[in-house]
Amino acid sequence: MTCLNVQTSTNQYSIFIDENIRHETDKYLPKTYSSILIVTDEQVADLYLNDVKESLAGRSNVFHTVIKNGEQSKDIDTFYQLQTKGIECGLDRRSLIIALGGGVIGDLAGFVAATFMRGIDYVQLPTTILAHDSSVGGKVAINHKLGKNLIGNFYPPEAVIYDIQTLHSLVPKEIRSGYAEIVKEALIADKELFADIMDAKLSNLTTTMLKEHIFRGVQIKKHFVQTDEKEKGIRAYLNFGHTLGHALEAEYGYGSLAHGEAVAIGMLFAMEVSNDIYSINLPVDILVNWLRANNYPVHLEKINTDRVLARMKSDKKTVNDQVQMVLLSDIGNPVSVKITDMDLQNYLKSFLIKMARDRK
Amino acid sequence: MTCLNVQTSTNQYSIFIDENIRHETDKYLPKTYSSILIVTDEQVADLYLNDVKESLAGRSNVFHTVIKNGEQSKDIDTFYQLQTKGIECGLDRRSLIIALGGGVIGDLAGFVAATFMRGIDYVQLPTTILAHDSSVGGKVAINHKLGKNLIGNFYPPEAVIYDIQTLHSLVPKEIRSGYAEIVKEALIADKELFADIMDAKLSNLTTTMLKEHIFRGVQIKKHFVQTDEKEKGIRAYLNFGHTLGHALEAEYGYGSLAHGEAVAIGMLFAMEVSNDIYSINLPVDILVNWLRANNYPVHLEKINTDRVLARMKSDKKTVNDQVQMVLLSDIGNPVSVKITDMDLQNYLKSFLIKMARDRK
Repeated sequence: MTCLNVQTSTNQYSIFIDENIRHETDKYLPKTYSSILIVTDEQVADLYLNDVKESLAGRSNVFHTVIKNGEQSKDIDTFYQLQTKGIECGLDRRSLIIALGGGVIGDLAGFVAATFMRGIDYVQLPTTILAHDSSVGGKVAINHKLGKNLIGNFYPPEAVIYDIQTLHSLVPKEIRSGYAEIVKEALIADKELFADIMDAKLSNLTTTMLKEHIFRGVQIKKHFVQTDEKEKGIRAYLNFGHTLGHALEAEYGYGSLAHGEAVAIGMLFAMEVSNDIYSINLPVDILVNWLRANNYPVHLEKINTDRVLARMKSDKKTVNDQVQMVLLSDIGNPVSVKITDMDLQNYLKSFLIKMARDRK
Repeated sequence: MTCLNVQTSTNQYSIFIDENIRHETDKYLPKTYSSILIVTDEQVADLYLNDVKESLAGRSNVFHTVIKNGEQSKDIDTFYQLQTKGIECGLDRRSLIIALGGGVIGDLAGFVAATFMRGIDYVQLPTTILAHDSSVGGKVAINHKLGKNLIGNFYPPEAVIYDIQTLHSLVPKEIRSGYAEIVKEALIADKELFADIMDAKLSNLTTTMLKEHIFRGVQIKKHFVQTDEKEKGIRAYLNFGHTLGHALEAEYGYGSLAHGEAVAIGMLFAMEVSNDIYSINLPVDILVNWLRANNYPVHLEKINTDRVLARMKSDKKTVNDQVQMVLLSDIGNPVSVKITDMDLQNYLKSFLIKMARDRK
């Protein structure tokens, strides 16, 4: 059993990482609760809902609700529908919400918990690699039709119970999506981890490797969120690759390009911009080759540059109408930099040309 | 100028109370902001929006949005519409929302601020007596169709700028509604204030009296929210009169009975229950007479007892399906008490009979 403790401004919570611990969910809950609502999606419900419910058999008033898979569920309608469910199940201020699933479930159910009667406890049970990132740090949100994660709170969970065994049911696209965030964590904080991952083939991961990579990723994430819970400073470094990533995700329609796949392209872009601004030579080629070898979509279909620019500008990190990008002065040395619209446009255009050329 | 400082778990904010200070809004804003969105309603916009905009003439990127009057606007649709407005105006994490209006505007715009990009600053400019209560303490929320204030956050403002002069535009119903909350504050904390108000006639209030009553009400509110920001304990005493009050408000349809009018009846009920449980003799008659003399609706039209009970049970204070009521063991001595369904039903029935009998 691996356990990490995260200190927040108001509380402390533990992240438990091990195989098969979903069967022991009950043991890891920090308190007794008047009632529990498990929020999950159709796909995860089929696989793991019964395991979790069985582990809670000794508790009373355990309810569950199953929503549709996919980013589309992170919307205001599903949010309201879950509030209704909570009220109808009789949840009160001493109740618990369990988010059983990937990042969509964690963000959505977490935001429901954050706002239900002005905030009740919730626990994350991540079932994807990507969720190693989103389940730690207390960022919860839903999407607005004009942008991702625009409506939300900072609201830490009471615990994260991470059953590595659930990751074996992931399809390759989801593995790619999750690994992109570990690559991100490596790039902003851990040269060795970056090298380790560049040596790994995603289709041949052992459980030991997976556990090790996730543990190191979570450690990095923990460091940043603990130092800067409300993203006033260094926490923003975790957005490396996300300025273009979010814009591409929205441009292609949420779900068609997986979050991490979009972030992977965003990281390449941020590395190219970094190379130019700092006259350095970050290993873009090594990363591109690794992404290709692992079937990441690295060539972009014809995209509307102006619209992508507009989307980058509507990002939450924008201040005074100027895009703030996270760059690297070296691996492990992130920097937050204001980029003018003109520069951004030029960088984006040459990046797109390069990505199209390399494609041939 | 009267100024009170409120300490929160993460911050501190000031409450400024004086005549005509809406014209000096700029002076009381604690920071510079990248942009400002003033949220107000049709009625208040006609009266005071220009004054506030003029006082901000030296600032750039000042926008405003006007929503419909009334409790109906505190819904999920208006909430989402305001998020859209914020995005369209280009608000970012260093922007400010100004809530110019009564409790509906404060709760709604405050909750928008609390969740816009996971939380931006907001300032309250209350324009009703009732809002002396809601603008202090950082409780923000919207209504769910199944209950009032069920979706929200604890999220303190950066300042409260209370221009007493705006209260002269209030209609009698709004004055009644606001004074009920001051009476509540008096009953849970200040015998002298209670006596002072019982001597006052709402149609003959002087500015000095109004300012004094509001100041003392805000002081009491401040004491409770500062000691217990997240309502884990004594803050709940501020809900005195609200268990039945909220249920009646919902039962009659939000808006038909003003919030404070409903709370006034709720206080009578809580006092009757207190008298029975503690074998005491709280001045119910004095309060009933004062309410009548000031045209509060104290007789209830035929109501469905079962439905009102069900509504009382869906209250946020309910724990383990048992209603928690705030009672008084004496004026200034509130107590939180669990009431069984059976007792609640009996108390409610005899209260309704008494209210019907007294009516004749």
